[in-house]
Amino acid sequence: MAIAKNPHILILNGPNLNLLGTREPEIYGRDTLADIEKRLKAKAKKLGYQIDFQQHNGEGEMVTAIQSARGRAAGIIINPAAYSHTSVAILDALLAVNLPTIEVHLSNPYRREPFRHKSYVSTVARGVICGCGALGYELALDALVNILAQA
Amino acid sequence: MAIAKNPHILILNGPNLNLLGTREPEIYGRDTLADIEKRLKAKAKKLGYQIDFQQHNGEGEMVTAIQSARGRAAGIIINPAAYSHTSVAILDALLAVNLPTIEVHLSNPYRREPFRHKSYVSTVARGVICGCGALGYELALDALVNILAQA
Amino acid sequence: MAIAKNPHILILNGPNLNLLGTREPEIYGRDTLADIEKRLKAKAKKLGYQIDFQQHNGEGEMVTAIQSARGRAAGIIINPAAYSHTSVAILDALLAVNLPTIEVHLSNPYRREPFRHKSYVSTVARGVICGCGALGYELALDALVNILAQA
Amino acid sequence: MAIAKNPHILILNGPNLNLLGTREPEIYGRDTLADIEKRLKAKAKKLGYQIDFQQHNGEGEMVTAIQSARGRAAGIIINPAAYSHTSVAILDALLAVNLPTIEVHLSNPYRREPFRHKSYVSTVARGVICGCGALGYELALDALVNILAQA
Amino acid sequence: MAIAKNPHILILNGPNLNLLGTREPEIYGRDTLADIEKRLKAKAKKLGYQIDFQQHNGEGEMVTAIQSARGRAAGIIINPAAYSHTSVAILDALLAVNLPTIEVHLSNPYRREPFRHKSYVSTVARGVICGCGALGYELALDALVNILAQA
Amino acid sequence: MAIAKNPHILILNGPNLNLLGTREPEIYGRDTLADIEKRLKAKAKKLGYQIDFQQHNGEGEMVTAIQSARGRAAGIIINPAAYSHTSVAILDALLAVNLPTIEVHLSNPYRREPFRHKSYVSTVARGVICGCGALGYELALDALVNILAQA
Amino acid sequence: MAIAKNPHILILNGPNLNLLGTREPEIYGRDTLADIEKRLKAKAKKLGYQIDFQQHNGEGEMVTAIQSARGRAAGIIINPAAYSHTSVAILDALLAVNLPTIEVHLSNPYRREPFRHKSYVSTVARGVICGCGALGYELALDALVNILAQA
Amino acid sequence: MAIAKNPHILILNGPNLNLLGTREPEIYGRDTLADIEKRLKAKAKKLGYQIDFQQHNGEGEMVTAIQSARGRAAGIIINPAAYSHTSVAILDALLAVNLPTIEVHLSNPYRREPFRHKSYVSTVARGVICGCGALGYELALDALVNILAQA
Amino acid sequence: MAIAKNPHILILNGPNLNLLGTREPEIYGRDTLADIEKRLKAKAKKLGYQIDFQQHNGEGEMVTAIQSARGRAAGIIINPAAYSHTSVAILDALLAVNLPTIEVHLSNPYRREPFRHKSYVSTVARGVICGCGALGYELALDALVNILAQA
Amino acid sequence: MAIAKNPHILILNGPNLNLLGTREPEIYGRDTLADIEKRLKAKAKKLGYQIDFQQHNGEGEMVTAIQSARGRAAGIIINPAAYSHTSVAILDALLAVNLPTIEVHLSNPYRREPFRHKSYVSTVARGVICGCGALGYELALDALVNILAQA
Amino acid sequence: MAIAKNPHILILNGPNLNLLGTREPEIYGRDTLADIEKRLKAKAKKLGYQIDFQQHNGEGEMVTAIQSARGRAAGIIINPAAYSHTSVAILDALLAVNLPTIEVHLSNPYRREPFRHKSYVSTVARGVICGCGALGYELALDALVNILAQA
Amino acid sequence: MAIAKNPHILILNGPNLNLLGTREPEIYGRDTLADIEKRLKAKAKKLGYQIDFQQHNGEGEMVTAIQSARGRAAGIIINPAAYSHTSVAILDALLAVNLPTIEVHLSNPYRREPFRHKSYVSTVARGVICGCGALGYELALDALVNILAQA
Repeated sequence: MAIAKNPHILILNGPNLNLLGTREPEIYGRDTLADIEKRLKAKAKKLGYQIDFQQHNGEGEMVTAIQSARGRAAGIIINPAAYSHTSVAILDALLAVNLPTIEVHLSNPYRREPFRHKSYVSTVARGVICGCGALGYELALDALVNILAQA
Repeated sequence: MAIAKNPHILILNGPNLNLLGTREPEIYGRDTLADIEKRLKAKAKKLGYQIDFQQHNGEGEMVTAIQSARGRAAGIIINPAAYSHTSVAILDALLAVNLPTIEVHLSNPYRREPFRHKSYVSTVARGVICGCGALGYELALDALVNILAQA
Repeated sequence: MAIAKNPHILILNGPNLNLLGTREPEIYGRDTLADIEKRLKAKAKKLGYQIDFQQHNGEGEMVTAIQSARGRAAGIIINPAAYSHTSVAILDALLAVNLPTIEVHLSNPYRREPFRHKSYVSTVARGVICGCGALGYELALDALVNILAQA
Repeated sequence: MAIAKNPHILILNGPNLNLLGTREPEIYGRDTLADIEKRLKAKAKKLGYQIDFQQHNGEGEMVTAIQSARGRAAGIIINPAAYSHTSVAILDALLAVNLPTIEVHLSNPYRREPFRHKSYVSTVARGVICGCGALGYELALDALVNILAQA
Repeated sequence: MAIAKNPHILILNGPNLNLLGTREPEIYGRDTLADIEKRLKAKAKKLGYQIDFQQHNGEGEMVTAIQSARGRAAGIIINPAAYSHTSVAILDALLAVNLPTIEVHLSNPYRREPFRHKSYVSTVARGVICGCGALGYELALDALVNILAQA
Repeated sequence: MAIAKNPHILILNGPNLNLLGTREPEIYGRDTLADIEKRLKAKAKKLGYQIDFQQHNGEGEMVTAIQSARGRAAGIIINPAAYSHTSVAILDALLAVNLPTIEVHLSNPYRREPFRHKSYVSTVARGVICGCGALGYELALDALVNILAQA
Repeated sequence: MAIAKNPHILILNGPNLNLLGTREPEIYGRDTLADIEKRLKAKAKKLGYQIDFQQHNGEGEMVTAIQSARGRAAGIIINPAAYSHTSVAILDALLAVNLPTIEVHLSNPYRREPFRHKSYVSTVARGVICGCGALGYELALDALVNILAQA
Repeated sequence: MAIAKNPHILILNGPNLNLLGTREPEIYGRDTLADIEKRLKAKAKKLGYQIDFQQHNGEGEMVTAIQSARGRAAGIIINPAAYSHTSVAILDALLAVNLPTIEVHLSNPYRREPFRHKSYVSTVARGVICGCGALGYELALDALVNILAQA
Repeated sequence: MAIAKNPHILILNGPNLNLLGTREPEIYGRDTLADIEKRLKAKAKKLGYQIDFQQHNGEGEMVTAIQSARGRAAGIIINPAAYSHTSVAILDALLAVNLPTIEVHLSNPYRREPFRHKSYVSTVARGVICGCGALGYELALDALVNILAQA
Repeated sequence: MAIAKNPHILILNGPNLNLLGTREPEIYGRDTLADIEKRLKAKAKKLGYQIDFQQHNGEGEMVTAIQSARGRAAGIIINPAAYSHTSVAILDALLAVNLPTIEVHLSNPYRREPFRHKSYVSTVARGVICGCGALGYELALDALVNILAQA
Repeated sequence: MAIAKNPHILILNGPNLNLLGTREPEIYGRDTLADIEKRLKAKAKKLGYQIDFQQHNGEGEMVTAIQSARGRAAGIIINPAAYSHTSVAILDALLAVNLPTIEVHLSNPYRREPFRHKSYVSTVARGVICGCGALGYELALDALVNILAQA
Repeated sequence: MAIAKNPHILILNGPNLNLLGTREPEIYGRDTLADIEKRLKAKAKKLGYQIDFQQHNGEGEMVTAIQSARGRAAGIIINPAAYSHTSVAILDALLAVNLPTIEVHLSNPYRREPFRHKSYVSTVARGVICGCGALGYELALDALVNILAQA
């Protein structure tokens, strides 16, 4: 696996994550996606990386965003949200770009309905971090940087 | 559940419903979506509500349309068409906006292929109306207005 | 399909619906079956139809009631309650009398246990109306009269 | 197995079979249940047996009819119709009376919906005859008399 | 849960239990249902309760018997026999009357065919007692009286 | 369906049926296949038909035998034995020759292992006769002649 | 089955039952395992039996305890707790010692997650008593003594 | 089925196919989508047809592209890629436009993960061509032109 | 994989294909197998290959024919017909000879019964061509020659 | 079970085993079937038995070979190869001849595809020996002779 | 949930983790469990927590270790290894002690065999961290301390 | 795979095997585990190997015993008994030590309950020997020594 040397990391958020912080805050916390982006950019800077932070409601837009990481990003942190459970297209995009990937979920899907227990993305991700809330993104960044350091 | 006081109702139609009236009319009837929209707006007016009537072929556009109903609409009437059976993203959007929702299907999916018997939307909708043709939208409006009157 | 010209509609209620209004009113509402019958008879009268309104706890009695509609009723509105999920005999009776049928459920079974998600009756009914409470019977009457008007 | 010596045979018909001959004659034939009863009584008489011929729409009535055969009938011919697929109570009644039993179906259920492919009664019947139309009852009588002759 | 103060207990027996003592006594024992009724009435009397002891072959009659316990009985002991495995209507009746319920089976269904391993009633009963023969009813009475004493 | 006018009936027996009468006679009876053939030929003669009686252990030979009935036989009586449960090729041959077919099984497969409960042949046969022993062939002949008489 | 004449009964408790009375008392009650042991020893004494009361967190220790009952105990009362659902080794130990066994569960597992609905032990136990709380052990003792009295 | 007489063929490519030739060339070959388009246009020209060649990452865009073929294209060649396995919306669009359709896959999905073995599109396509690499598109054109020639 | 250099191709046809052209021509077309053989031999000649064209009703004969291709044929085109769905032996023969293989089906099995959706042969074939009628063999020849040219 | 006294053992090999030693020798070893036959005959001779060693590609030939062992062989060693997983006919033949049988597989099927994990033959064989290569036949001979010595 | 105020964290490792660093280092890395323990103790010290670090091969020992955390530890980090997939007893122990829990897996089980995709522990853990190697323990400590800070 | 050169073989027996010879001798034979150990030690000695023979009721003890074979034993013969069907921990231990392993079962599990048909150990063992009684251990020793000789 040829990992890009470009110190750029794509952080990709799936459908409905734009509502974060305003929707069921007792479950998902009060951080908005903008709060998370800010913290991650600061943390990445210290670690010597740049962040490209995106959110999309559409599956096709998710696919295109992953494709565009080819040759530009060193790795991907993805919270596919609902598309975890239904999108083979996102799985195929990740297989095609072949970058080290960490999957993040804010809540723990294994404590929810059975159809949320299967993630196509998990079958290709290097690491999976669930149920750690907004902190999960920061843990994912640690994990991804650790992988890139060993590459 | 805090129901919006704004007397506005989102009527959202899923993929391929733009072909209504011109495709297999012996099954789906000769009413076009525009015909239905006109009748519903007239009926809603009498009941003291406004209608926002949309159709989208894309899952992401459906999600975005539902999100935009937050704080603007009092309730949702949705005919998710094919996405009924495959979209967790639309289910999550409906969970997030948390508005009274009625699901409509023109034909009765329980008389079709097994993969049409499961609807993610039905697990969150207050009411489900199937197989009543274009009239189903009007019945859904009656049902939604009845729920809003009790809220 | 030879639909009877007799403007008579059978409204058939399944097991435990005789407890309506007195059992878990926060779920099923405070209307009794007698209240519903009264409202439907009034509404049917305006529409030019007569109502034969019955309730039975036994599957065999349900079958016999359906059979007796042959040659006497123009259509059937049925709330099969628990028998929705278990009765092939009621399905066969509906197949045999071959009258336009609308299935009604007071609550939305797709939000309850998985064994309530399958209805044998739905595979033969023209329309299905769930989760609209007692109003569902009136919507069903609208839908059935609409079908009969087109026949 | 103590088989009653009384040359009496119970022929028991399940739900909706009372409509025979008047319902979908191109599938089920034009013979009414009364026609079948008459022919079977004539045939049984020649073979030295008496027929007790019954039809019930209710599962409980079917159970009671089987129970009453204990000590009175030498064997049972049963067309359980829809209850084939759903009734453990009828299976248990047949287990309890423990008489030689032949199951009959007018049409071949293996050519219909999957839920008609399983018959609880078939797991206890000595013989099963499907798809031979009204003649199936006569074949069943031949088979039962043959078993009784060997007992 | 408002438990009736009336010291009356419904003991309800399902299909084929009227044959008890005369059918496969090596499995089900030699006690008839009348023997069991007598012993239970004597035991209940000592404990300060009255017994209403019934047996029905029909599902609808079972439903009606449970309904009639509302406001009259303090609790229910039910041996649903074959209907354990197939009746949603009996489950719904128990949910509707909402009385403390103990389910009894003479033999242990988990040692029989797989279709006997599932009981709809077990999902709502407070306690389940299987395989203790006729004594099981007396144990159930002990358990029910214990629950009522704590209510 | 064009049924051949040639009064010739193919009776086709599957694998291991050549051992009949010598293998587990308490289950399968003491009749050999030759005994059955003799009785059937006599019975057919009275009814005005000729019998072509074959047995094969190979699936391909069964297919070829069915094919050769095209244009030569008026109908088929088939005991596919083990191939009932596994052979799509025999099903396809029966679909291709499109002759009225009765399936026979000596014992009742629904009282045996689950893999014997499914028969590909049953999905195409007009009638199915199980568990009536060697007499089953004679009943099948009655049923087939009855069908041919109505064609 | 040769039942030991030694009036000794093994009461065996599985993993986590040592926490009884201190863990979720609103569900499992306030009785500790020591309280239950005391009451059972008193009750057993009156009935002429001795109690060997054990608790183990390990599957192997449970197996060894059951093995050691061979030739020493007349019967077993077992609350296998979590091992009910996962341990073939405990099932095999019970098969090997071949003593009359009653299975007890404090709560009713059929009202919990699906993986708790299957018990390997239930397939070999004579009786099963669920959901009767700590009283369930006393009922089990009654049931076991009743079985031993008939042996 | 009214097939359009307009000699125009829509060739529609699903998500991630824009990466063709640059992604895992040892599996998918070194041809880019542009190479394939060029060869197909040349071949179509010889056969008297025009090609409309498109690629989309979004499911909704795929649906819209299919809809727009109505009245404009004589047939469709579709490589739905990942959407083969998940999109009922694309299936419904194909049902609605009702044009002769050939499905193409570059690799053979039956040699990959089980979730790639099911294609909604295959249930409506006239022909399916898998595992023939880029040549598969040319074979599909031959097959489609052959169908159109017979229409 | 050592591909034979001998320009010889085995075209192997499974059960019932000998009836081609005479059986259900509206589905399978009017071409006989001889017609197809003739066209393929002509086409192969132009491409510099020889054809060995066989048809067998027996699974064992199919296995033997595949085995005999080892060291003699450069590749295989196989229409396994009904054996696609049931024969592990044919799969194993193909694995053993290890020659490039294209699977052909005249009709599209994904539009037929579910048991026709699984093909053991598809898990080993390089390419699969379905639903293109008799032309499918010619397309398969193109595909196979293309593979051989690249070997 | 009457075991034949004739010291003759049938060793029966299924489809594709004739290729042994020449096909994938790194998996199946370099021994040909002839090598194995020679070693087994030598070993059997020392043990006082004769070997009848056969291989067939056809299921029907396998059935016929098993049948012919009746009355001639004392036991059977069978490597059913692919037919292990699909042939009820071979299972029935083994049930019919009722001789002590050992099943052998060269490789361990439980390390291969899921469809190779089920063997119909294993449900009737006394012993099963997998994954021991050609030595497995010799171990099977030891096992069979041991069983015959105890008979 | 009453979380203990004692700044003590139990880190519990399941079966075979004692081999870490010496077994398949290319998969699991070269860190031994002692290395991980040392790093975690240093990190915890900085965060103001103490670590109790254990490894057990036995399920019962795992259960007992969890129980002993009650009243002593503020939270649990558990790598249940193989017991993730099979142990209801460990799930029940975690339910009983009711402490914030993070589940860790060194590799990503969703990329391994299907039986490794289900974890009983995941249904009760607050967070799950997979595939991040030995770093995963440190991320889990961050996550747990974050939860404890919010309690 | 680096196989230890130390001529030491671990023979590991699972739960309840300590009862061998005294439990159901008609099924498991009259040999005790000590008898088997003695015979194996004698046989191994002749073959130039030493035996380490152990039995454990606990899963954790089984895991530890396997681990301790690393660097000490040349191979493993394991009869996992009940843990075959439930223990991923034993599977993982075998994967970790990576020694040639033969699995033995005294009886044939494929003739018992379905839950005994799956063995985690079989997915990693080189060979599997079932249903050959105590002789199975000796055959396993032959097979293992054969493998070691080829290493």
